Amino acid sequence: MTFGPSCNVSQVDLSHHLSSEARMRKPNPMKEIWKLTRRKPNMVSLANGDPHFSLYPMRRIEYEMASIEEADPVAAWRKAGPSAASTKLVSSTYEPCALPLQTGLQYSHGAGLPDCQRVVTELTKFYHNPPDHVCTLALGNSDGIAKCFRLLGERGDYFLADEFSFSSITNVPLAQGIKWAGVKMDDGGMIPEDLENVLANWDTARGRRPHVLYIVPCGQNPTGSTLSVERRKQIYEISQRFDLMIIEDDPYYFLQYDSLSASTTDFSTPFVPSLLSMDTDGRVLRVDSFSKIMAPGMRLGWITSSALFHTHLVSYTDASTHHPHGFGQMLITELLSGPKGWQIEGFDRWVRSLRAEYHRRRALFLTLFEREVAPTGLARAAVPEAGMFVWIRIALERHPRLRGDLRRVPGGDRAGPRTNCAALMEELFERCLDAGLVIMPASIFALPVDAKDADVEDPVEDRLNYLRATFAGTEEAMEQGLAILGQTLREFFADEQQEMELA
Amino acid sequence: MTFGPSCNVSQVDLSHHLSSEARMRKPNPMKEIWKLTRRKPNMVSLANGDPHFSLYPMRRIEYEMASIEEADPVAAWRKAGPSAASTKLVSSTYEPCALPLQTGLQYSHGAGLPDCQRVVTELTKFYHNPPDHVCTLALGNSDGIAKCFRLLGERGDYFLADEFSFSSITNVPLAQGIKWAGVKMDDGGMIPEDLENVLANWDTARGRRPHVLYIVPCGQNPTGSTLSVERRKQIYEISQRFDLMIIEDDPYYFLQYDSLSASTTDFSTPFVPSLLSMDTDGRVLRVDSFSKIMAPGMRLGWITSSALFHTHLVSYTDASTHHPHGFGQMLITELLSGPKGWQIEGFDRWVRSLRAEYHRRRALFLTLFEREVAPTGLARAAVPEAGMFVWIRIALERHPRLRGDLRRVPGGDRAGPRTNCAALMEELFERCLDAGLVIMPASIFALPVDAKDADVEDPVEDRLNYLRATFAGTEEAMEQGLAILGQTLREFFADEQQEMELA
Repeated sequence: MTFGPSCNVSQVDLSHHLSSEARMRKPNPMKEIWKLTRRKPNMVSLANGDPHFSLYPMRRIEYEMASIEEADPVAAWRKAGPSAASTKLVSSTYEPCALPLQTGLQYSHGAGLPDCQRVVTELTKFYHNPPDHVCTLALGNSDGIAKCFRLLGERGDYFLADEFSFSSITNVPLAQGIKWAGVKMDDGGMIPEDLENVLANWDTARGRRPHVLYIVPCGQNPTGSTLSVERRKQIYEISQRFDLMIIEDDPYYFLQYDSLSASTTDFSTPFVPSLLSMDTDGRVLRVDSFSKIMAPGMRLGWITSSALFHTHLVSYTDASTHHPHGFGQMLITELLSGPKGWQIEGFDRWVRSLRAEYHRRRALFLTLFEREVAPTGLARAAVPEAGMFVWIRIALERHPRLRGDLRRVPGGDRAGPRTNCAALMEELFERCLDAGLVIMPASIFALPVDAKDADVEDPVEDRLNYLRATFAGTEEAMEQGLAILGQTLREFFADEQQEMELA
Repeated sequence: MTFGPSCNVSQVDLSHHLSSEARMRKPNPMKEIWKLTRRKPNMVSLANGDPHFSLYPMRRIEYEMASIEEADPVAAWRKAGPSAASTKLVSSTYEPCALPLQTGLQYSHGAGLPDCQRVVTELTKFYHNPPDHVCTLALGNSDGIAKCFRLLGERGDYFLADEFSFSSITNVPLAQGIKWAGVKMDDGGMIPEDLENVLANWDTARGRRPHVLYIVPCGQNPTGSTLSVERRKQIYEISQRFDLMIIEDDPYYFLQYDSLSASTTDFSTPFVPSLLSMDTDGRVLRVDSFSKIMAPGMRLGWITSSALFHTHLVSYTDASTHHPHGFGQMLITELLSGPKGWQIEGFDRWVRSLRAEYHRRRALFLTLFEREVAPTGLARAAVPEAGMFVWIRIALERHPRLRGDLRRVPGGDRAGPRTNCAALMEELFERCLDAGLVIMPASIFALPVDAKDADVEDPVEDRLNYLRATFAGTEEAMEQGLAILGQTLREFFADEQQEMELA
């Protein structure tokens, strides 16, 4: 792994994956001029309209951060609240610091401020040690993924994803004219054999065979599933064989848990190797984020890719969002490399402590589920190995109003659903709302596919009998929410008389 | 002007200006669900993977800002440096503040955090009082404009702009397949008659008549020109007549100066009315930025538009960058509405003081120019009424190696330039670099147009005899830079013997 855009190119030429927009994009002509300011020492510049830092109305920003001196820093920070031990980081114009205000708040370029790009590169190396890659800063996870979609996707293309995926992301490329092709999942996440099946049997009358796979390997949203090392290797091998680019979206990487029987996740438990770590070809674009491990409003993340895609990501960033804000970059640089900062070792202690905290939340959620919901016999929770979500299967087969013969009734659509699963789940969702509970229905996450691309043999409408719940919220929310869910399920399944209003 | 997306729609239906991508875009399905969390009081949510604020590793951010108690706050701040009077703003989880950390650093939606959207709306109302518009937060000026381009532009479209424009911006839509059509300028900026001429004589064989005008009304980059109120009214009237959308890019709005004969710009001098303030139809998308008046690295700005375009901007933001970072939003909210903040009155004092400061810089630049460059008789500086740039005309007609007959020489291109202006300017630019000065050549700003769209009668290559210089830098840079420029011009124009290596 190399720092900066001058690293070796990857061994496989993957430039044919670039979208026509990306290939048409020319670097900003101003950048060539800016480079000239370094032609020789002491160049005088009358070139750029950069406000002088003496005119910035701020001269010092102080961030009060958690101390990582405690054995379990997240627990200590959370319990003591305003009186917890802290460390103060400073970004200043006049005091020494890792990334001074006058640099941090000036214009920079698409890859981000070099100091911040460097610490993020070191972080990536620490956890993934990818073969030959470069980091590009992004404005959080969504921005990073949207940029990858724009970089690779062409109108009429199909992208591959889990058939249940996070709709805030799968919604993004639709307006570009990109369509989705779903891959089936089980408790272990994407099924490699189905991925291979979709690719091997691709009908090119639909369009060119998909060349982009979007995947969330840890604590997948919404199912909570995590890919085993074995599956990751299989998926990477399939990607090589079918020449796929992989967008590895991994916001929950640090939230990987020990088994439920353990009282907490041991700090020393290793993280499952990422697809990036296996990426000898340079076909992985990995998107990382600080949202789940620090705070979502930071809107700061990074993309790790081969130098080729890095160069194009930088050009696109310069021609769209521009580099991320200086605040987050100053904070991260100070945190990871400043004299009072956590350093990478302290960051590692924080994220390992954080996953122990989420381990406890997961345990609490599942204990409450056992108490409030499981006794109904009407729902079963999958135990997630990572992330923030529990995928709850509703036993609709036990519902008195379930119908399984919709295709055979007069006027039944031969390509449509066989069951009224979708309507019953909609009704359950509405009943939960009426009872005061917001919980996510599976329908929201069903990959948006064109009617003509729908799976006629095994329509997704018949497999919507799931709810997504999170254990990221408060203990009170879990306690109250699961009590409402249990009670609502009892009433809903007992209700034999009521007409199906929504069918 | 209304706060929030529920304002009255504008009186003219302009929805036909939306790009097919914008029209295809569907709102994020998750948003509908999130709204349900407000269906009734005390809803319990197990819906969203929002990390609880007690797990954010920061609990307090303190910003040390300039005091605006002084009569001329920018001068006081600049002169006293680290010992200047300051005011401390705080964003905190546990202390009272205008926008607490737990809200500011949580996820929000495309328009931005409501508290910040509100203060930015109040600011816009204070300066522009637009008829019926809504503000959408953006990640700075470039992000805002790039979003407007994506919202309005279709592959094959032509957009209109000054024939010399900021190439970092004009480069942006080219990869989308959008082309530029230039409008001629004089010292007063875009010439309304030429705008009308381009539109009235549009040959639809090139493509549909342009429907988007990109314009910088104050201190235009690179020419420094500012549109008079009269020209603004003419341009708006032409836009109505030819059904144009106007992207008003106005980062230098606050840097409008009194005449050069005044020793400073009076605090009470009014700002020229913006195109937004005249926008009865809802055809202006105005882009504002904090980069020039606070700091570029803030990467925070906002777009003011009719409710229709606001809605689409929010959808696009939700499907690309997501809302801007919380740091800048917390800072701006605290600054403009917090108990220790400047409030809008203090902000107004700051920007009026800032333009007085830039007035002094402009005066210094022009004084130095008179001393170092003007005596050569080889260059003339236009006096900018706003902004940060001086457009310097080089008297190439006096250069001994100027040729004006290139079309008549054997092999001369009848559609090409008549003169070797471009080659001589390239040579001058290189000589400046060799002498240690970076100054921007006009060629960098020539609107990028296809060869087939070039003006054959009056080719832009013959009008590249300008340099752009800035007075945003230090006094030393101006002093040294203009001395180098004067000396380099003398040598360049004295050089009758040297072969034209670059011709």
